[in-house]
Amino acid sequence: MIIAVDAAGGEYAPHEIVKGAIKAAQEYKVDIALVGRKSILRVLVGRHLNKPGITIVEASQSIELGESPLKAIRNKPDSSIIVGIDMLKNGTASAFVSAGSSGAVVGAALLNLGTAKGIQRPAVGSLLHIDAAAPILLIDAGANADCRPSFLVQFAQLGTIYIKEILGISSPRVGLLSNGEEETKGNRLTQESHQILKKTNLNFIGNIEGQDISKRAADIIVTDGFTGNIVLKTLEGLGDAFMNLRRVGQLISSAYHHQGRTLLYDVGLGSLVKRMDYREYGGSCLLGVNGNVIIAHGRSQARAIKNAIGLAKQVVERDILQRIKEESYE
Amino acid sequence: MIIAVDAAGGEYAPHEIVKGAIKAAQEYKVDIALVGRKSILRVLVGRHLNKPGITIVEASQSIELGESPLKAIRNKPDSSIIVGIDMLKNGTASAFVSAGSSGAVVGAALLNLGTAKGIQRPAVGSLLHIDAAAPILLIDAGANADCRPSFLVQFAQLGTIYIKEILGISSPRVGLLSNGEEETKGNRLTQESHQILKKTNLNFIGNIEGQDISKRAADIIVTDGFTGNIVLKTLEGLGDAFMNLRRVGQLISSAYHHQGRTLLYDVGLGSLVKRMDYREYGGSCLLGVNGNVIIAHGRSQARAIKNAIGLAKQVVERDILQRIKEESYE
Repeated sequence: MIIAVDAAGGEYAPHEIVKGAIKAAQEYKVDIALVGRKSILRVLVGRHLNKPGITIVEASQSIELGESPLKAIRNKPDSSIIVGIDMLKNGTASAFVSAGSSGAVVGAALLNLGTAKGIQRPAVGSLLHIDAAAPILLIDAGANADCRPSFLVQFAQLGTIYIKEILGISSPRVGLLSNGEEETKGNRLTQESHQILKKTNLNFIGNIEGQDISKRAADIIVTDGFTGNIVLKTLEGLGDAFMNLRRVGQLISSAYHHQGRTLLYDVGLGSLVKRMDYREYGGSCLLGVNGNVIIAHGRSQARAIKNAIGLAKQVVERDILQRIKEESYE
Repeated sequence: MIIAVDAAGGEYAPHEIVKGAIKAAQEYKVDIALVGRKSILRVLVGRHLNKPGITIVEASQSIELGESPLKAIRNKPDSSIIVGIDMLKNGTASAFVSAGSSGAVVGAALLNLGTAKGIQRPAVGSLLHIDAAAPILLIDAGANADCRPSFLVQFAQLGTIYIKEILGISSPRVGLLSNGEEETKGNRLTQESHQILKKTNLNFIGNIEGQDISKRAADIIVTDGFTGNIVLKTLEGLGDAFMNLRRVGQLISSAYHHQGRTLLYDVGLGSLVKRMDYREYGGSCLLGVNGNVIIAHGRSQARAIKNAIGLAKQVVERDILQRIKEESYE
């Protein structure tokens, strides 16, 4: 299995990407193709280049975060994102991982791979690790700002396939994110989506509200990409706020306590804050395109990249793409 | 100043409402008119009834949370919400506080008080106390699930007046909640709203994202009521998750440590969790109607009701209604 990794994308590229890829190659026994500028990557990979597991694929250009995704896709055919997506298209790689411009990744995947039969729009499925017992899936976490009810119903179908395979839940509960429990609550989009979802054979449990997210009231939270992105980033921001306070607290405590004393108290909070840090844990999968595309956080460091590669491996092994292609869509 | 308080609304009505009202009358030196069933309220108010500060106004009906707000408004003319709103209309009370069905409160206010001149839709402005330095305003936090760009622009205007008066910030920063910083990001609603907001004389700082909320990147966060409600409840749910972990942590710690040892460590986290608990701190103001209406959390206990009455007093004293009426709207 070869996993192509965008070595030019994200805030900490290429150093942290390379570090994460090397760790992943060792830990997961996968072959990594680092996509970027050979001259630079050769130096960074160094002694690991001669070992099995890491190869370099030239891509002379890179797409920056500020750029218009569609323009960049057109004007930079030799960018790491376009080259990586092409490797999926021509079968050179089984999956592509990028921490670069997610707009460009989604656009390039849509244009160059196309969607699975019957799928109107691909969606970003993000795993949220708020509860220690199991993650939940937020879909769409950002690919489609404006949605129709039929899109949301397909997101629910895609999410169900994904969670079945990734978490092994046989009949995952699908909740529709809304501003009230009753089916009459919501905006026009959710009200109409609710009526269609009720008639599917999905395990649709109805509307869920914001406070239900951290209670794991559903296994899959279906929403439009605008709301999903805001929810994801709101959780991330609050996690940061807690993490900062925790650091300050630990500094103060360590001046007063013997080492280890606050450990028991700290362990619960710490693990929640850590799980919520989606730079580390929240690799997202672009579901519905004809290829395995993993979107890592733009601020991914080595550990996050390693985890995203681990997710890519899982997605390939469970053959989620095939499961998605076999389904017929509403 | 007489503040009417819905004694029949909310999960902990009437006991906690009455307790909170009595405390508020003592602490804030305001006169409270408890609206509900006299026979019950007389018993609960007990010895306080003979002191100045508390009166009882009969309302024989109450609107339940599950009811359709519009039907309930029509069918229950003697409900505490309708009677309370009427007290604003006929000038008997200066403000009305309710922890009951927010849909019914908004509907009754809209129907019986009407909107200020030029206002298309009233909006719920909720103060978020994430940062210790100062709260920020989320508007609309739930009144309008489907919005037009012109609504959002008016929410920004209403929010600016409110924050100027309540927090004394002369030129509060207005951020438009979106799924990306650039003005081209967002759904159609935010993209169009952005273009109009740019041309106003508001201190519009552009789009802000979910993670900016806990960083206090803006003083006012403008969004539609669907997204706003979900953000508010997502924050609430996560706050609950942290609070629960903190309680568990404290129990474990107290078994191992001497009292007071974890205090310094705990103080920062504790205050953040506490501030985020919008049952206590997050009284919301319905802005844009011809009356001072404060919406308290449905799970408000005495302290939350007392705080909501404190907010009502502030809104009356700063004459926010007059400021709103003086403004001309886009």
